[in-house]
Amino acid sequence: MKGIAIVGYGYWGPKLARNFLQEGSFGRVVVCDEDSERLKRGKRENPGVQTVGSFAAVLADPEIDAVALATPVATHHTLALAALKAGKHVLVEKPLATRCSDADELIAAASTGHRVLMTDHTFVYHPAIQRIRSLIESGDLGRLIYIDSTRINLGLFQHDVDVLWDLAVHDVSIVNFFTTERPHRVQAMGCAYPPGPLASIGILTLRYPSGLFVHINCSWVSPVKIRHMLIGGDKKMIVYDDLNPNEPVKIYDSGVLARTDDERNRLMFEYRAGDVYSPKIEPKEALANLASDFVAAIRDGKAPLSDGRFGADAVKILDAAQRSLASGGSEIRLSWK
Amino acid sequence: MKGIAIVGYGYWGPKLARNFLQEGSFGRVVVCDEDSERLKRGKRENPGVQTVGSFAAVLADPEIDAVALATPVATHHTLALAALKAGKHVLVEKPLATRCSDADELIAAASTGHRVLMTDHTFVYHPAIQRIRSLIESGDLGRLIYIDSTRINLGLFQHDVDVLWDLAVHDVSIVNFFTTERPHRVQAMGCAYPPGPLASIGILTLRYPSGLFVHINCSWVSPVKIRHMLIGGDKKMIVYDDLNPNEPVKIYDSGVLARTDDERNRLMFEYRAGDVYSPKIEPKEALANLASDFVAAIRDGKAPLSDGRFGADAVKILDAAQRSLASGGSEIRLSWK
Amino acid sequence: MKGIAIVGYGYWGPKLARNFLQEGSFGRVVVCDEDSERLKRGKRENPGVQTVGSFAAVLADPEIDAVALATPVATHHTLALAALKAGKHVLVEKPLATRCSDADELIAAASTGHRVLMTDHTFVYHPAIQRIRSLIESGDLGRLIYIDSTRINLGLFQHDVDVLWDLAVHDVSIVNFFTTERPHRVQAMGCAYPPGPLASIGILTLRYPSGLFVHINCSWVSPVKIRHMLIGGDKKMIVYDDLNPNEPVKIYDSGVLARTDDERNRLMFEYRAGDVYSPKIEPKEALANLASDFVAAIRDGKAPLSDGRFGADAVKILDAAQRSLASGGSEIRLSWK
Amino acid sequence: MKGIAIVGYGYWGPKLARNFLQEGSFGRVVVCDEDSERLKRGKRENPGVQTVGSFAAVLADPEIDAVALATPVATHHTLALAALKAGKHVLVEKPLATRCSDADELIAAASTGHRVLMTDHTFVYHPAIQRIRSLIESGDLGRLIYIDSTRINLGLFQHDVDVLWDLAVHDVSIVNFFTTERPHRVQAMGCAYPPGPLASIGILTLRYPSGLFVHINCSWVSPVKIRHMLIGGDKKMIVYDDLNPNEPVKIYDSGVLARTDDERNRLMFEYRAGDVYSPKIEPKEALANLASDFVAAIRDGKAPLSDGRFGADAVKILDAAQRSLASGGSEIRLSWK
Repeated sequence: MKGIAIVGYGYWGPKLARNFLQEGSFGRVVVCDEDSERLKRGKRENPGVQTVGSFAAVLADPEIDAVALATPVATHHTLALAALKAGKHVLVEKPLATRCSDADELIAAASTGHRVLMTDHTFVYHPAIQRIRSLIESGDLGRLIYIDSTRINLGLFQHDVDVLWDLAVHDVSIVNFFTTERPHRVQAMGCAYPPGPLASIGILTLRYPSGLFVHINCSWVSPVKIRHMLIGGDKKMIVYDDLNPNEPVKIYDSGVLARTDDERNRLMFEYRAGDVYSPKIEPKEALANLASDFVAAIRDGKAPLSDGRFGADAVKILDAAQRSLASGGSEIRLSWK
Repeated sequence: MKGIAIVGYGYWGPKLARNFLQEGSFGRVVVCDEDSERLKRGKRENPGVQTVGSFAAVLADPEIDAVALATPVATHHTLALAALKAGKHVLVEKPLATRCSDADELIAAASTGHRVLMTDHTFVYHPAIQRIRSLIESGDLGRLIYIDSTRINLGLFQHDVDVLWDLAVHDVSIVNFFTTERPHRVQAMGCAYPPGPLASIGILTLRYPSGLFVHINCSWVSPVKIRHMLIGGDKKMIVYDDLNPNEPVKIYDSGVLARTDDERNRLMFEYRAGDVYSPKIEPKEALANLASDFVAAIRDGKAPLSDGRFGADAVKILDAAQRSLASGGSEIRLSWK
Repeated sequence: MKGIAIVGYGYWGPKLARNFLQEGSFGRVVVCDEDSERLKRGKRENPGVQTVGSFAAVLADPEIDAVALATPVATHHTLALAALKAGKHVLVEKPLATRCSDADELIAAASTGHRVLMTDHTFVYHPAIQRIRSLIESGDLGRLIYIDSTRINLGLFQHDVDVLWDLAVHDVSIVNFFTTERPHRVQAMGCAYPPGPLASIGILTLRYPSGLFVHINCSWVSPVKIRHMLIGGDKKMIVYDDLNPNEPVKIYDSGVLARTDDERNRLMFEYRAGDVYSPKIEPKEALANLASDFVAAIRDGKAPLSDGRFGADAVKILDAAQRSLASGGSEIRLSWK
Repeated sequence: MKGIAIVGYGYWGPKLARNFLQEGSFGRVVVCDEDSERLKRGKRENPGVQTVGSFAAVLADPEIDAVALATPVATHHTLALAALKAGKHVLVEKPLATRCSDADELIAAASTGHRVLMTDHTFVYHPAIQRIRSLIESGDLGRLIYIDSTRINLGLFQHDVDVLWDLAVHDVSIVNFFTTERPHRVQAMGCAYPPGPLASIGILTLRYPSGLFVHINCSWVSPVKIRHMLIGGDKKMIVYDDLNPNEPVKIYDSGVLARTDDERNRLMFEYRAGDVYSPKIEPKEALANLASDFVAAIRDGKAPLSDGRFGADAVKILDAAQRSLASGGSEIRLSWK
């Protein structure tokens, strides 16, 4: 492959540049930013990159096959569409877009041009998350009953998006990765503090035809940082603690067995609590896995794990959450073909 | 005071018997249960008690001034009303009732007969909770922004009430104790697993006129036990971890300061993260404090902390949550005089 | 069996009384203490017991087969010897004695009279400790390389014994239970604070013919409580944290493999760090297991796990530690037949 | 200042290079290594540096004022002496040397030539350690009673030094920083696994004229990583946990008060356990503080915190520990002028 351009060199761009340099398949890694100070920094931090000050130059350069967008959310749709139309493969930082129709348009453009469209849902490439999905797919957990995620900290406030688009987007993509099912009922409640248009605390619930119940608690105004997810199956349950460096994933041999007691005509329960097992998780960087998957998708024509459709599904759910939040928490119903 | 009867000797009754024996103000502590095996057990575990097999005998006994009910929730209203009408002071295990009108009727009966009516919201008497309320009242935390509580474990399923009445009732009473404000909007979502009429996972949100946002997450089907509450003020924040024996209460010198940046016409934030302070909490048993408050209320005619009105407020909120849950999560509006 | 007398009703006696009542094999459980207040308390706390004020009466009572001593350490030898000579089976709170010759005399007396002599090394009956010994015996850990125990807290100072006899005695008995090997070199260092004859901080090292290295750190003057033991084998390692209610025992698939690199003539190492497994430990009370073992030993004539010899071995090691400590940490050599 | 040469570009050299570049006082930062691949790496990782392949060239270069040695321990004395004699200021990675006479010779050479000699005991510049020293110096802790450090992990084995020179050196320098007192009695015990000449587990005790008792437990063969230090004063105590990112330093209002009970002629104790306070520690990198101190020492002629004498004191203690270890744990007495 000839070259990839990293567009936007703020917080995320440097990480992309470093990982595509290390991945090594692209002959050139170009950093594009309108701010010349940032280009200087890019050159200093990643001496192997080339720099360019204009997105138009990137589009016009035939030696650039692919574009990775690390620009503000509001620009994703316009820039990605232009890049696809210019014949580039495109990787877009999450979220893919903020409107479903925009996401769909990108998917169509990629399909028409036979280009790869990928969303940077990094967690999908996280070794711990991939291990949990394997456990779910193997049937070890049994049927999924609930997923309960807490993602809170004293955070960097975003000026363009609220806490759902900033934090809950991770949980939504993780849940979409754990199951092929999609929610039919979405509700979101929140609190804007400091007062303003953007929620800094968000509570999101997703309900599924199978009965799966998902609850996501995210906040920028917690004095302590918590990254804690429970995945409850009717056979086993998992606790994923992203901040526990030694045992991020624990599998519990505890479940709830239900049986009918005819005489009393009511449910009786047994409680099981058994062994705990914490598999070793390989310490591979998620973004390195993502870079490899993007390269493989371009080379082999195979859809990446977090392709355009995967990204669009997250947009659809977050868009519904947004509307629920704006309405004060009313339920939004979704249909999926 | 002549005597107190503990009615119902199952899980909670023995604790009440032991604490009223230790408190020492009542000349007699009588255990009342229709099950003679339980009465034998009561005699064995608390040799100082007397026993009686009929509630009617308790009501008729002029040497019994007070009744403490530790019977199934469904019986609270009927038994408490009978006891008040028989001229007894009454302590009722939480919740006071399951319908607002029932709670109001008990309050009226107590008022008419000049009797003490108290609800056993034990957490209100917990030294850590009382310490946190002092910190809130002193103004140290500033204005309350949010309270976020997680109360989950692999639990004992109740057959008569769902997880909201069983677990969220604690958080509702704690929040009602922390602030005199009452919520005007209530929403609840949940999941019944194993399938049945009663939710085993419940998500409750309360919104207040001042902007305070309360979120409660309770579950009987978590593989790990968590008792974790965040109380966020605009000056300081508190983390209360009921399972941390050494430092249950931590006060964070971190808050969020907002100011308007006129030039950019958008909110700008500063982040503060400072010292952490964990006050020593006296290891006094909450139920001992509660027993003392009941005795003092009878003796001095002063309302106890968790009086009938306090109990009725919790019933009103949980009743609204119940209706929201039944409707699939729609918002219930409450008005308070 | 006719009866057992619990001698001494201070801190440990009540626990023994309760457990022998629950065990149920003895027709009578008698509490013996010279302090009549304590006897009253015994009657109140364990209504099923009988009481007696004199040890001589216990010895003379033909309806008492067995005696459990929970008296000050200095009295163990005299009382146990008298009881054995009176034909009683004897259980002695740890340590069995403070001098090796005293311990040996008790063993001889028990042997001559065909009586059971047992030391109350409770940890040997702890389900977690028994599980760890099974893992060691199965060969899963490989050869034992080291055991490292930390047992510190802000403690109750003893007036008659130092921190080694009070705390390290537990670790010594646990190590003696994990391996049949006995140490041939003992060293102890310590610190007496507040100033006085008794050490409140003690460091104990034990070295074994096989190369096993044991390090015990115990203290009464730590602001935090730690109960942490590492057991390192050349195949697997175990962390035992007595204060972790959920996962007290963790087994690590990490070991150190050594091989010789001939070319460089120096050791080369591979590092393995693998899965972690935490078996469910049954929550059975250790003292209940101990009571059962005492009864079984009397009934079946089989030596209990912590018999007189087991108790004497601990005395021999602690006596050596004491002498090392008194000499400022010099090495004491021990020989074992 | 004209220039500094970083000699040795393995594990530690890159960190020194980065920090002296950032510090900015030296006009040139030169990396010196005989391995040309390492020089290329130095250029790539820190584009601002110059490179040179020979230590002789460094010594001969009049534009280089200072030398920072990050070479194997065995070379420290020879290289540092040559650099001092060539008129350079010298910073030496810990330990300064492995023999007391070597350390003294370096101090003398620095004194004669009026050059700065500094040892890179990085922890002395760690914000948490500096905060703890302030607390000790202020008298808040009262008199120091004990320091107890655990520094264990599944470690990188060193081929030239044992675990005491590799890990305990940190604790020795920290203790020397906390108090101006120096130990008069040193003992060390250990275990070499895999079998060989170098201990991989080391237990070190230091005793001081004032009664201060220091215990250091270090290991390369623990399945879990622990960095835990207790500092016990007779008024307050501190727990320093280097792996706790949120609350590395906790101050306990718990101490032990002793008083004499004349009647009983034995010590009586009161136990206090009070509040816990965790000060915010500024997240400044220790090595940046160290670089500033080295520059300030050159500029102002003031001794740095970890000057040659400070480094030599650590060598003297570790050398004694080494001799104790080799003799099987016998006590080594030290005298300090």
